[in-house]
Amino acid sequence: MGREIERKFLVTGDGWRGLATAAARYEQFYLFAGADRSLRVRIADGRSARLTLKTGRGLSRGEFEYDIPLDDAEALRETALGAVVAKTRHFVPSGGHTIEVDVYEGALAGLVTAEIELEDEAERFDRPDFLGREVTDEPAYLNQTLALAGLPVEAGEPEGR
Amino acid sequence: MGREIERKFLVTGDGWRGLATAAARYEQFYLFAGADRSLRVRIADGRSARLTLKTGRGLSRGEFEYDIPLDDAEALRETALGAVVAKTRHFVPSGGHTIEVDVYEGALAGLVTAEIELEDEAERFDRPDFLGREVTDEPAYLNQTLALAGLPVEAGEPEGR
Repeated sequence: MGREIERKFLVTGDGWRGLATAAARYEQFYLFAGADRSLRVRIADGRSARLTLKTGRGLSRGEFEYDIPLDDAEALRETALGAVVAKTRHFVPSGGHTIEVDVYEGALAGLVTAEIELEDEAERFDRPDFLGREVTDEPAYLNQTLALAGLPVEAGEPEGR
Repeated sequence: MGREIERKFLVTGDGWRGLATAAARYEQFYLFAGADRSLRVRIADGRSARLTLKTGRGLSRGEFEYDIPLDDAEALRETALGAVVAKTRHFVPSGGHTIEVDVYEGALAGLVTAEIELEDEAERFDRPDFLGREVTDEPAYLNQTLALAGLPVEAGEPEGR
């Protein structure tokens, strides 16, 4: 298992695009999504699949990840709760970190978020201009909420600049 | 994935004991348990662990199993829903099948069940004397119900003989 400390932001503008060094397209869905536990399947670039179990709440959570056969992922897709979310993740080096910029598609088009993984809750990091409002503690921007409830009302309206 | 067709029975008497050819002790618990999906962790003989995701309802269900590190299983135990169920499973050859006789411990002591896995719902099988009432369709005897709700009221009272 890992203990995951991630902070999440809305993205403003396209300044990150020239800085991205890699990208992957994800399709992901939830098999279970509760207040303190969730089970997600993610298919990466249509080629590989991974099961992710998250436990706990808030900034610091337990995370357990297992690679699974692509065939299993495709069978499980039939039992998804809510929507299958598609997005392209762009990897943007920034200081000693990599910021992951997610550009959503389909029903979530217009939403662009950024995540940064930290060693601990107090760790400092460079905050480039394209990071807008922090939404780490906003349930509407949890991946599972996006899959189950769709786009937050405010999203798509640029803010923070 | 597999598609699992299992029938489950209460066990009457000890006639199976001399027929068992192997046994394993399981500790298992649920991370979630819903009407049409569940996620179970099983630790076998304190040495290995497996994650089992079941989907669907009734006699025929989808089953996805993944070996996981024992350390993960022990960390996940802290987030179990309901009780950690301990039982010893005895493997009893019968005709062309293996009947699995589960002898429960702790809060479920007194309960002994038997399961047989079949190729399809209509498959015939030898029914030895120690198989009592069939409980395949009784929710009270689902593994997840036993973990979450405990012993059915009637259990422990031998019946069917």
